[in-house]
Amino acid sequence: MMAENEIPYSLKFIVRDYECDLQGVVNNANYQHYLEHARHEFLISRGIGFVKLHDEGIDLIVTKVEIEYKLPLRSRDEFFVTVSIQREGNARIVFIQDIFRYPDLKLVVKARVTGVATKKGRPIAPPDELIVKLGFE
Amino acid sequence: MMAENEIPYSLKFIVRDYECDLQGVVNNANYQHYLEHARHEFLISRGIGFVKLHDEGIDLIVTKVEIEYKLPLRSRDEFFVTVSIQREGNARIVFIQDIFRYPDLKLVVKARVTGVATKKGRPIAPPDELIVKLGFE
Amino acid sequence: MMAENEIPYSLKFIVRDYECDLQGVVNNANYQHYLEHARHEFLISRGIGFVKLHDEGIDLIVTKVEIEYKLPLRSRDEFFVTVSIQREGNARIVFIQDIFRYPDLKLVVKARVTGVATKKGRPIAPPDELIVKLGFE
Amino acid sequence: MMAENEIPYSLKFIVRDYECDLQGVVNNANYQHYLEHARHEFLISRGIGFVKLHDEGIDLIVTKVEIEYKLPLRSRDEFFVTVSIQREGNARIVFIQDIFRYPDLKLVVKARVTGVATKKGRPIAPPDELIVKLGFE
Repeated sequence: MMAENEIPYSLKFIVRDYECDLQGVVNNANYQHYLEHARHEFLISRGIGFVKLHDEGIDLIVTKVEIEYKLPLRSRDEFFVTVSIQREGNARIVFIQDIFRYPDLKLVVKARVTGVATKKGRPIAPPDELIVKLGFE
Repeated sequence: MMAENEIPYSLKFIVRDYECDLQGVVNNANYQHYLEHARHEFLISRGIGFVKLHDEGIDLIVTKVEIEYKLPLRSRDEFFVTVSIQREGNARIVFIQDIFRYPDLKLVVKARVTGVATKKGRPIAPPDELIVKLGFE
Repeated sequence: MMAENEIPYSLKFIVRDYECDLQGVVNNANYQHYLEHARHEFLISRGIGFVKLHDEGIDLIVTKVEIEYKLPLRSRDEFFVTVSIQREGNARIVFIQDIFRYPDLKLVVKARVTGVATKKGRPIAPPDELIVKLGFE
Repeated sequence: MMAENEIPYSLKFIVRDYECDLQGVVNNANYQHYLEHARHEFLISRGIGFVKLHDEGIDLIVTKVEIEYKLPLRSRDEFFVTVSIQREGNARIVFIQDIFRYPDLKLVVKARVTGVATKKGRPIAPPDELIVKLGFE
């Protein structure tokens, strides 16, 4: 659980025109791309290589996403995506992610992404090294 | 709620290679594309033109998605996406959507997508015509 | 070169809303997705598994694309993508691909996609089996 | 034409995992996304708003792309995309764009993208204001 005074990891983006759709706003699916990219960069920042893990036979997979859309982003809007994590049970890692528009800091998206580590397609308890790097020990 | 003997709308797809990512499976965000395309085709099948509505100043927007990933799809897997609907409160329409792999009918994704009609960015009660076409009245 | 009476391979699609951008038409990059999917399905129809080849260490990679955009596709337009092939020199395979809107058969895109077979990242002459399956021998 | 000592506009990117495909490299179509985003940011840097032009009834559309793929980008590779422009005839603007991997500066993609201004779907000579902003007069 994030301590009161802990600042969550965040990553800054700008909306690219091709990410917008007919309605003139970012297509809903693209927020999942933003969230994913921020999660992977967060993991890298903790020394966890998503691709390297994959090469070792361990995949971190997403089992559930819950996304609330509060405000649409438009062409060239700047925004940042936050990432903080919680453990849930023995196997699950939950990523709490918000997207805020910049610079007015309005809430754009609230997301909760649940993941598990898998080996050969089966869920495993996250390896110790992962637990330590994620700061859970 | 779907009556016991009612068959929900469904649309068939095949996985395209470009939809798969480094892990060799369909990227999570792409399931949202599949779900969206099936919803729009469902609305068309009920005589509701998504783009036509937009031109009239009414946008159907998604306010929330909840997606459970049960089984990953791979290159050239065939699958179908179902759509059925429920009303929630006065303004919200909930799309219950599942993705099943074909032909083994294994459950791939379970989704619940909440939408509202908006005019100039503000939620409105769905227009009568919409309610009738959706079969709610 | 295609014989006068030879009908090229073709694959039918419908435009999905998420493939359209701010301008209300299919985003340019998405035509490359359509072309790629048609090429891969064409190769499958000749018994050539793109993913299977990759697992054997052989990748068919694209070295050049030339695409002329003649007419934009819009939401829910139907269209088909053709594929025919030519050999160029010893190593290169050229895919001649057109996109036609359906049912008025107006030309949407004219493309020429050059590919080579590679092993460990280096170009190789296409394996005999590939040549035979492509109908070049 | 770019003067010998002129440094072209360039924009820096990092490869996001979702942009990579089954082959472990960036999917070919995504380079068009990178090229497009760099072109639009280039136009903005010259005071030309792509979306604002669209709202005024003028669309800058791409009529042709030629892309040579020299080297594939992989997960988290950094790279920059350059943009310089030439006029061709009365109506066409040609964007010369290269992608270089960072920091080894290896050439990844060489592209030539031809565009025209259109009004109600018909090509027009680029408006004077556009010509001046692009530095052509």
